[in-house]
Amino acid sequence: MVSKNQIKLITSLQQKKYRNTNKLFFAEGVKVIQELLQSNFELEHLYSTLNDFEEVSKVKKTLIDDNDLKKISALSTPNSCLAVFKIPVEKERIESGLILALDSVRDPGNLGTILRLCDWFGINQLLCSKETVDIYNPKVVQATMGSIARVNVNYVDLNAFIAQTTLPVFGTFMDGENIYKTSLSQEGIIVMGNEANGISAELERLIQNRLTIPRFGDIQKTESLNVATATAIVLSEFRRG
Amino acid sequence: MVSKNQIKLITSLQQKKYRNTNKLFFAEGVKVIQELLQSNFELEHLYSTLNDFEEVSKVKKTLIDDNDLKKISALSTPNSCLAVFKIPVEKERIESGLILALDSVRDPGNLGTILRLCDWFGINQLLCSKETVDIYNPKVVQATMGSIARVNVNYVDLNAFIAQTTLPVFGTFMDGENIYKTSLSQEGIIVMGNEANGISAELERLIQNRLTIPRFGDIQKTESLNVATATAIVLSEFRRG
Repeated sequence: MVSKNQIKLITSLQQKKYRNTNKLFFAEGVKVIQELLQSNFELEHLYSTLNDFEEVSKVKKTLIDDNDLKKISALSTPNSCLAVFKIPVEKERIESGLILALDSVRDPGNLGTILRLCDWFGINQLLCSKETVDIYNPKVVQATMGSIARVNVNYVDLNAFIAQTTLPVFGTFMDGENIYKTSLSQEGIIVMGNEANGISAELERLIQNRLTIPRFGDIQKTESLNVATATAIVLSEFRRG
Repeated sequence: MVSKNQIKLITSLQQKKYRNTNKLFFAEGVKVIQELLQSNFELEHLYSTLNDFEEVSKVKKTLIDDNDLKKISALSTPNSCLAVFKIPVEKERIESGLILALDSVRDPGNLGTILRLCDWFGINQLLCSKETVDIYNPKVVQATMGSIARVNVNYVDLNAFIAQTTLPVFGTFMDGENIYKTSLSQEGIIVMGNEANGISAELERLIQNRLTIPRFGDIQKTESLNVATATAIVLSEFRRG
């Protein structure tokens, strides 16, 4: 059974302000929950329709039915379980190696996919501008497939950060150098921009290394790449050597 | 004004069987509709809340209000316009150059993103297995951002097609050759697999060239890449030379 108060609390966590006041977020599905449990995320409570998760103590889990799960889930087709976790204190950011920085990425699916890419390409630090969608948004948590447990994420005043860093800064633009022909360092900050507007003009002025992913289609008509697929190509280029 | 019959017809087009019986599909938003109009798609009827699309004759457009648009739209936040187009007869498939083939890609957003990638990388032919999501699904049309007008798409019995082709066939697997170190031809078929299961075992047996995108993160724990981001990296590798 889930109490009315629990339902109220969990559904409120779909909104950022309630996540921040309660310092809690939730994840759905066995895979993501297992990844978070195995990492340093502190479980508040687990709700499952199955007698699973033997590693979780009885006081921290409740067996519920599908009807209860529907009431607390953010998914149109709920999984078998939902877990509420404490939002950890932001770790100190890492300022070495390759760092990915996002300037106002708004779509939760894009942020989740980008976090998976960081995980794949061994990028340990993701910096998000304050306008970027919240990493603990349930749709982001879902799309990360557990990568949220392995990449350090910090929200920063991105313009101020970029203005003071001594690391080389890279960004993709329509008129940059051909990324396939540029020698890319294994240290630096790679900036990716907003879905509709790209990198803001103010931030653009602070970026020394302008890169371009060349088009091979009809140059007049082709749309730009989606930010997640562009990030995939850029990270692949930095890592391939 | 939109009549009850029109509402019924347009909403039915969210389902594949009604798109097939009526040989119609719809698109929403100025950008996608403009791209389709400029291409060879034949307009059935345009519904707009604005006095726009001057290039469309009066008999083919209806000025509607937001309330009407809500009734016909498939979006939770409807745009300003919706257009119904005729589904064109499948063009003959192109069997030269680089061809992308999808084995049971199910997510409409993924198919749309992959079509945009084909457009960017100048891949003129996309082959979809019969189990792949329908290209005229409204969510696919939306995610293509107009690329649907520029890439030739055919639905085929993919196993039979691959079994008889004389072109080289490439696929990505966990145990393939490092894609960064393989010399890739500019002619051939690149096969990408289903979101959950990858390329089917039957099809796998027909693929001579096994490629892998190397991981740089923690090899034990990292999830696989999403099919759209993996496609981005693979196409980029084939084209970069």
